[in-house]
Amino acid sequence: MKTRATYEELLGLWRDQALLASCSAVLGWDEQTYLPRGGAEHRGNQLAQLAGLHHEKVTSPRIADALGEIENTDLVATSDSPEAANVREIRRVVDRLSRLPRTLVEELARTTTIAQQEWSLARRENSFARLQPWLEAIFVLKRQEAACLGYVESPYDPLLDEFEPGATARGLDAVFQPLRRELTPLCDAILGSSRRPDPSILRRYYPVDRQRIFSDVVAAAMGFDFEKGRIDLTEHPFCTQLGPGDCRVATRFDARNFGDGFYSVLHEVGHALYDQGTDPAQYGTPMGETASLGIHESQSRLWENTIGRSRPFWDHWLPLARQLFPDSLRDVTTEAFHFANNLVAATLNRVEADEVTYNFHILARFDLEKALIEGDLAVADLPDAWSGAYQKYLGISPSHDAEGCLQDIHWSAGLIGYFPTYALGNLFAAQFFEAASADLPGLDASISKGDFADLLAWLRNRIHRHGQRYRASDLINRVTGSPPSHAPLLRSLRRKYGRLYLD
Amino acid sequence: MKTRATYEELLGLWRDQALLASCSAVLGWDEQTYLPRGGAEHRGNQLAQLAGLHHEKVTSPRIADALGEIENTDLVATSDSPEAANVREIRRVVDRLSRLPRTLVEELARTTTIAQQEWSLARRENSFARLQPWLEAIFVLKRQEAACLGYVESPYDPLLDEFEPGATARGLDAVFQPLRRELTPLCDAILGSSRRPDPSILRRYYPVDRQRIFSDVVAAAMGFDFEKGRIDLTEHPFCTQLGPGDCRVATRFDARNFGDGFYSVLHEVGHALYDQGTDPAQYGTPMGETASLGIHESQSRLWENTIGRSRPFWDHWLPLARQLFPDSLRDVTTEAFHFANNLVAATLNRVEADEVTYNFHILARFDLEKALIEGDLAVADLPDAWSGAYQKYLGISPSHDAEGCLQDIHWSAGLIGYFPTYALGNLFAAQFFEAASADLPGLDASISKGDFADLLAWLRNRIHRHGQRYRASDLINRVTGSPPSHAPLLRSLRRKYGRLYLD
Repeated sequence: MKTRATYEELLGLWRDQALLASCSAVLGWDEQTYLPRGGAEHRGNQLAQLAGLHHEKVTSPRIADALGEIENTDLVATSDSPEAANVREIRRVVDRLSRLPRTLVEELARTTTIAQQEWSLARRENSFARLQPWLEAIFVLKRQEAACLGYVESPYDPLLDEFEPGATARGLDAVFQPLRRELTPLCDAILGSSRRPDPSILRRYYPVDRQRIFSDVVAAAMGFDFEKGRIDLTEHPFCTQLGPGDCRVATRFDARNFGDGFYSVLHEVGHALYDQGTDPAQYGTPMGETASLGIHESQSRLWENTIGRSRPFWDHWLPLARQLFPDSLRDVTTEAFHFANNLVAATLNRVEADEVTYNFHILARFDLEKALIEGDLAVADLPDAWSGAYQKYLGISPSHDAEGCLQDIHWSAGLIGYFPTYALGNLFAAQFFEAASADLPGLDASISKGDFADLLAWLRNRIHRHGQRYRASDLINRVTGSPPSHAPLLRSLRRKYGRLYLD
Repeated sequence: MKTRATYEELLGLWRDQALLASCSAVLGWDEQTYLPRGGAEHRGNQLAQLAGLHHEKVTSPRIADALGEIENTDLVATSDSPEAANVREIRRVVDRLSRLPRTLVEELARTTTIAQQEWSLARRENSFARLQPWLEAIFVLKRQEAACLGYVESPYDPLLDEFEPGATARGLDAVFQPLRRELTPLCDAILGSSRRPDPSILRRYYPVDRQRIFSDVVAAAMGFDFEKGRIDLTEHPFCTQLGPGDCRVATRFDARNFGDGFYSVLHEVGHALYDQGTDPAQYGTPMGETASLGIHESQSRLWENTIGRSRPFWDHWLPLARQLFPDSLRDVTTEAFHFANNLVAATLNRVEADEVTYNFHILARFDLEKALIEGDLAVADLPDAWSGAYQKYLGISPSHDAEGCLQDIHWSAGLIGYFPTYALGNLFAAQFFEAASADLPGLDASISKGDFADLLAWLRNRIHRHGQRYRASDLINRVTGSPPSHAPLLRSLRRKYGRLYLD
């Protein structure tokens, strides 16, 4: 009885810290959508203050005491019970934050807020020099963070662990090496094929207003609940959950690039469906939170690539697109449009990269951020090292920094160890979709009717509703019957791109 | 030395609470612009939590001790020194909040957040029944607030005091009675005049996109700094300062009502110029805050009415408006357009009311909210009482609640005692503009060239930069050489409307 009461008290305290964290999320959303330039410095002070107050809540002695009273009791004896999962994940976060001095947490919040604004300007001005001092400050702070958190092999590991609990640089290498080994010959074969789509179809004129309408319709069909969320405009697409009934997607549109906006929406709405699929009654506790960034990314990738770049998808949606963009699509067949949306090419921009080469963009960033955090690479040398990494993985180099190391906001936001979860997401998405296809024999037919209800119900039931009950690899094992593997992704890519480019 | 150090410490603590209050302001802005419906309940919880944390900061023992150590020392001996003003105004807020239990503060924040969303729906559905329980809860809470704060004559007084320090219901009566006495015959004469403008000019088609462009241009010309602020869309126009470089205006546009959107922008930008004119170095201390809501409103009214409805204003801006709205304005003379923008009529909508009858809308609300808070009127009887008040002051009654007591968000936001500051703003604006006209002989000529620089500099120098150094009536005395009076407003209205309707 006493343990149960302590457990309920712990959950109440934990919901309280989650509530405060969600206030920061509102300020972060505004920062990336509507904040005027003159407000950046003050926003940094606001977020630093909230981060400090949040740190205080998470590291409160009462939470530590309650955890101590509950751990090793019968309440949490069954390792994957909801109670055990909540206690396990609260312990993980408390241990992390307890090792970080509040001053460091505040300084990171302040610095990364301003750095994100500077990144936006640096990218527009193509000026790495503008961003360099901010990145230097951030890597100094993140090395301090890693030192406080502690590590065995690399300061990269405790940073990575924030996003993908339990993952290590060495463990990633063990997945990424075979991925690269098998992907490279497939990619070379595709790039060497004489069969090429006509990508200029996607560079015709697609009025932005109509792109918004079209992507809103598809988002609604996917299951995005507009009463519990919104889609705004921003520079760097993202999705953030501000509360149990408030999930915000932000994207950008380019009238001369259909894919950039549309697939950003599919991607971010994929994230949003996961957020909207968690249990609102568990909001603020680990059981109401998403499992890991790799799992999160699997949801976005599944909708963006596996679904959104499939032939059945366009069988259904191209007729509507033709009505909205008659001048650009009147003469375009489904075959040609589907092929154009699956162009494989070595390019410089990660966000616009295709499914096949995308993974190389991540491998390059993984090498670079590991070297930066381990001290093997100085921030000043990043532009050159970026060129080198792109040569190594993709055989190309940027001609200027805006299309090179200034393209991503992540490091400016203090997100080190975040990029690998994108590649993990690709692997997990393929593995989940294989399982879903086996469970739902009519899946392709449903997709070709624009009907995603069964798929979404499957995802909600098998993945979303479990929150953090299972760690990522356990969840994958439970859902697919196999441990995480690169094999399903390779199978899926070989099948699809073999048919388009090689058969 | 010691006192100075304690004073600096106090300012630091005070800036800290202001920083947290500004976080709530961000969440409040979002609530009124972009919050999806499903997020309302959680937003209420967020704002309640922040209100509680803020209450804790303001009522911290260290602030009370520091105040005690500084008061009655030489540092604050000169009553209108910056130091004395800061200490005086900090004391005022600390005393207020110390009397309010934290639970009440949190409950008010939570209830008013949800009530504002309900108001929005109730207004759309024309359903007073939907809002009634929320208003009942709010008036119960506000009566509790008044009881905690204490009062001599009326529970209305301590609520009014939040917005207009030192004001009382009795004091307002002393201003509002002569105002009504002198205004009524003037209004009757105007309404009885055979000379009437053609208001249908303003009901032609004004595309919303172009209204946005036009009002943005005028806002920029007025001096609104778009690098330190933005203008968004909302249901109920407002302005809020989120930080020293971040002032947000929100407005609405109606393609068939030119005045509604345009004058809302002028009004809210008038507020914004005051916010943007406070000293950023003093941000977070009383010296960096605006003096009172009456003074604040004087700035918005001055730009909206005194400037924006003047003949010199339209001499300059109508040609540009004609370029943007050629079909609607091609055949319209400056004379006719100016007259149309100065239509005087007994109408039901406060926000759209003209300068003359506007004050009657406020007198009606003042009577009603005083009766509601004093317990002489039940919320359930509000629709009938509203009709009665409009009959009394304007001789008309709403045919349904959406155009009656559901038109304003204020009571749903817990703002009781706020409306009178609008009428005070009208008085103060006229008094300030008389003084400015005396100081700046070429003012009308500048306005007719679209040049507001001298006027803005005068406002900044005489009013904005002083923050809360002087209480409202002292400030008016210093700037105009006279105590607050209704006479300048009457002079101004008689001159302008006499020329248009009566001479």
